[in-house]
Amino acid sequence: MESDRISKAVIKRLPRYYRYLGELIEEGVERISSAELSRIMHVTASQIRQDLNNFGGFGQQGYGYNVNYLYDEIGKILGLDSEHPMIILGAGNLGHTLANFRGFEKRSFRVIGIFDIDPRLAGQNVRGIPIMMIDRLPAFLKENHAEIAILTIPKDQAASLTEILVQNGIKAIWNFAHVDLEVPDDVIVENVHLSDSLMTLSYNLTNTHREG
Amino acid sequence: MESDRISKAVIKRLPRYYRYLGELIEEGVERISSAELSRIMHVTASQIRQDLNNFGGFGQQGYGYNVNYLYDEIGKILGLDSEHPMIILGAGNLGHTLANFRGFEKRSFRVIGIFDIDPRLAGQNVRGIPIMMIDRLPAFLKENHAEIAILTIPKDQAASLTEILVQNGIKAIWNFAHVDLEVPDDVIVENVHLSDSLMTLSYNLTNTHREG
Repeated sequence: MESDRISKAVIKRLPRYYRYLGELIEEGVERISSAELSRIMHVTASQIRQDLNNFGGFGQQGYGYNVNYLYDEIGKILGLDSEHPMIILGAGNLGHTLANFRGFEKRSFRVIGIFDIDPRLAGQNVRGIPIMMIDRLPAFLKENHAEIAILTIPKDQAASLTEILVQNGIKAIWNFAHVDLEVPDDVIVENVHLSDSLMTLSYNLTNTHREG
Repeated sequence: MESDRISKAVIKRLPRYYRYLGELIEEGVERISSAELSRIMHVTASQIRQDLNNFGGFGQQGYGYNVNYLYDEIGKILGLDSEHPMIILGAGNLGHTLANFRGFEKRSFRVIGIFDIDPRLAGQNVRGIPIMMIDRLPAFLKENHAEIAILTIPKDQAASLTEILVQNGIKAIWNFAHVDLEVPDDVIVENVHLSDSLMTLSYNLTNTHREG
């Protein structure tokens, strides 16, 4: 892997390439020039060439990109060629919503367990995925291989549950709790702070239209 | 407003300041030094002073920041001092989840209508917010003031619905659809591409641990 040379900005753009290539495949497109890809993605062709050159290129002069091949290769770079078992902490609305996203499975993210503290949920399931009580979590993580933990719990429970996750070998947290997590250096956190996102929208709305 | 001088990076950090200040208020903290705020937020004190100086400072030498005052002022900068009526397009799991977030209302984001194409949902409501059929949307937008539209619809419906929204005066879209939207320059889009976020996590997980 050449990932140590690759900037965060490029990494952020990879899922977007993957998304557009997936759409091209759905439309039956087999190959595409960087000029055409540039037009639909609203980035310059030279940006596309530069980004993809980080991973060895993939394009051929006069032919363009083979859509299926490029899609698969970017998928591998994104780690989508191996399965990532996930658990969800918090079986509320958002936890249910994420457990129901079938699109994740297509891309090798499979939810293997959901945890909550509400005893009324014990024994229930979402699409066959069992909801367990949170005190089962350490034993579950010892008995099952889970890579990613999704946190959809209230912020006041996030710190103590993160500690349990880290102690039991979880190396990646997808955090929807409205709080920043403290984790060791070898644990990766990707935050989705929905309220922060809505406030950024509000800021831009308020200030753009005040000035306009 | 001094917003034209303010960088995107500062704007992205404002909701985080707001979040931390809100927590300090919950804990009963009335004033805080930039050194202490720096410690809990893991940013340098000089960064904090610089960021807040964009908006006129707010700190006092030897006193620090008045937590309530700073919270209110940042709230105003973020546009939280006026109400932003919202509509949700898509009454699936995610639409329901967002309609149920009570935290939004506390910050003056109020959902006034939910739209879907599924006739089985017609006449239903979420916490008193009516679910209407999508063909009612243009008339609803003429009769009601809505500022923000939240898109939780499948990607193949996003383009046509965005056109209807824009034609009927919507100036801000919070987009959860798995597609980039084409909008006029005066319409603000804030994307939450959940799959992109999960793939970024997967990339970092795959590549960090391959190298380690």
